[in-house]
Amino acid sequence: MRLSKRMEKMQDRELLRLMELAEAPDMISFSGGFPSPQTYPIAEIKEALTEVLDLHGYEALSYSSTSGYLPLREKIAKRMNKKYSMQLSAESVIITSGSQQGLDMCGMLFIDKGDIVLCETPSYVGALNAFKAYGADFIEVPTDNEGIIPSELEKILSEYGERIKMAYVIPDFQNPTCRCWTAERRRAFMNIMKDYDIAIIEDSAYEEIAYEEMDRPSLISLDDKGQVINCGSFSKIFCPGFRVAWICSSESMIEKFLLLKPNIDLSSSSINQRMIDVYMDKFDLDEHIGKIIELYKSRRDLAVSTMKRCFPPNVTYEIPKGGIFVWISLPQGYNARELLQLALQKKVSFVPGGSFYTTSGKENEIRLNYSNMCEEKIVKGIEILGGLLRDFLK
Amino acid sequence: MRLSKRMEKMQDRELLRLMELAEAPDMISFSGGFPSPQTYPIAEIKEALTEVLDLHGYEALSYSSTSGYLPLREKIAKRMNKKYSMQLSAESVIITSGSQQGLDMCGMLFIDKGDIVLCETPSYVGALNAFKAYGADFIEVPTDNEGIIPSELEKILSEYGERIKMAYVIPDFQNPTCRCWTAERRRAFMNIMKDYDIAIIEDSAYEEIAYEEMDRPSLISLDDKGQVINCGSFSKIFCPGFRVAWICSSESMIEKFLLLKPNIDLSSSSINQRMIDVYMDKFDLDEHIGKIIELYKSRRDLAVSTMKRCFPPNVTYEIPKGGIFVWISLPQGYNARELLQLALQKKVSFVPGGSFYTTSGKENEIRLNYSNMCEEKIVKGIEILGGLLRDFLK
Repeated sequence: MRLSKRMEKMQDRELLRLMELAEAPDMISFSGGFPSPQTYPIAEIKEALTEVLDLHGYEALSYSSTSGYLPLREKIAKRMNKKYSMQLSAESVIITSGSQQGLDMCGMLFIDKGDIVLCETPSYVGALNAFKAYGADFIEVPTDNEGIIPSELEKILSEYGERIKMAYVIPDFQNPTCRCWTAERRRAFMNIMKDYDIAIIEDSAYEEIAYEEMDRPSLISLDDKGQVINCGSFSKIFCPGFRVAWICSSESMIEKFLLLKPNIDLSSSSINQRMIDVYMDKFDLDEHIGKIIELYKSRRDLAVSTMKRCFPPNVTYEIPKGGIFVWISLPQGYNARELLQLALQKKVSFVPGGSFYTTSGKENEIRLNYSNMCEEKIVKGIEILGGLLRDFLK
Repeated sequence: MRLSKRMEKMQDRELLRLMELAEAPDMISFSGGFPSPQTYPIAEIKEALTEVLDLHGYEALSYSSTSGYLPLREKIAKRMNKKYSMQLSAESVIITSGSQQGLDMCGMLFIDKGDIVLCETPSYVGALNAFKAYGADFIEVPTDNEGIIPSELEKILSEYGERIKMAYVIPDFQNPTCRCWTAERRRAFMNIMKDYDIAIIEDSAYEEIAYEEMDRPSLISLDDKGQVINCGSFSKIFCPGFRVAWICSSESMIEKFLLLKPNIDLSSSSINQRMIDVYMDKFDLDEHIGKIIELYKSRRDLAVSTMKRCFPPNVTYEIPKGGIFVWISLPQGYNARELLQLALQKKVSFVPGGSFYTTSGKENEIRLNYSNMCEEKIVKGIEILGGLLRDFLK
């Protein structure tokens, strides 16, 4: 059958097959952005699910409202308010089926063919693909370890003007680089952007996985004009299997998302929303997140110390202060996709950094995830990579 | 912020507010297309969920694969094969987050701005809205109680030619009319369509809710060229709260849907898919559907006998042979939207038929759902409607 034009831009299925291969059970996988299953509070989830079915079975198994389960939206608003001294109400929150759905909805809401989306360089490929499906063009704003560089942003804004419809940024422990914007850069960014009629998508998927205290005001808390759409998720701080996430924004912006939601899946899973709500009533989510952070921090330390021991000295990386990735640079001229082929033969996988750029040519980087493998595999996998790198970089 | 052009065509939020009002707890609602919560097998679901969490908790709480949980896809293929003597494999099935997501994906896959979608007249407004978001134009093919009229279809196909990209049809107990296509019409439809390069979306949401034996070959079972995309769902035969549905098509077509799924929500809920799979292993889904049919058939009988007793004789309807709606016609010139305003004051709701047409002007019909209200409310609500109608049609 004749497909739509947007299908011409769709990611090759071969790449998806490669991702599946990378997650084969016998693989030491540093590739996915997956949380560690050992953090899932299975007994507590069972208790919460039992309570939901016993007390509210009929409602939990019916359709949810378009905006999502009100008590859960209230809890999400309350957590945001507490963290960022804001005054959001539940009307500023819509539940989405995973944060990816929130990103897709942003594409749907703002992007016409040929519109420009600004993003960090590099950026999360899953978001870029979602926007690409609506015909977006991309401009990567030069970014350093402190965040998007304000002077570069200004240059791009004045050059491309009205064609820019959206900026997509991940200020906290970014995917793939694990960079965290400084408070100063956040303020500078918002201060520049407030003069433009451009939606700002703030992806906060990793925001709560922080290994140290830092001043990190969310962009939405710095927003005076209802410009920021903040996408958060229970996937990394709880479990991804429920597909429950959220968007926070101004009430009038949330009204727009409510127009889209019936078209794309009617509503998110009612039982899953209610289960998380009951879990948050009965148990302490923040305490649970504390345990996740403790585990990931120790895995980060193990990954970094093993890299230090096994990687050649011309392979460089920053030590991440949060999130679940290390971003690794090989010397210029080496191609991480070639290294991946060698690694797969040794049953080790990672994602070549080139996948996270909107233009080709930057191929000497690696995204290494350390949250999802046990300690033994982290050491073994990095030792194998170290051995391969010593040969590969000769 | 500046929105995308597609937002100009989005349904008014006022209409959604009206739908919410129609579902208020004190309302006798004949409006939603909702299954009856009393059919939900809560105890069995609890048992299945407990087993999933006890035996496969880690996997159930992680991301699912893009295509969905393999054993569940195998079961769906097997049921299709048994019903329609087909030989589908699990590779012909992708799990979607509700059937609505499947419809949205069809829009994404096929529709460019200005492409024409053929549909029955009237048709399911939720599907039409999803396609409209991709810029679809619509042509309603004249339809009678046996289905789409072949000669009318041929006329439209020859007139509009290549602009037609998709046909969206609901051959079984259609939403909103509850019409069921005859086997002859199904064959005639496929026989005509096979000469055109047009995707056929077969919406089977109500297909299993049949009150009597009829020869109803699915369009996908009559398809020799991989033209049909069959959308099915657990929402009406089990529970909608899990948001688990599916698309069946040729393996090469499913490959295309697999390109879209990562962009829109990464994957459907893993625990929900596994729960339904375990439920189907431990319990008899067909027996469960049998009980649903029995309940809805008795509610249909009650609704129809009450309508017969209370409605003026110039209000007409067909007795539905399946599904969950009765389609009611007022005499020409009367507007069901006006009747709805009166009914809402008496705390009774339904959907005015005009909502299901792509062009305006056809306003004298009513979609009445009878699956979701208890027997007492069915009688009371129809008595109230009858009283209103006697005044309204004076």
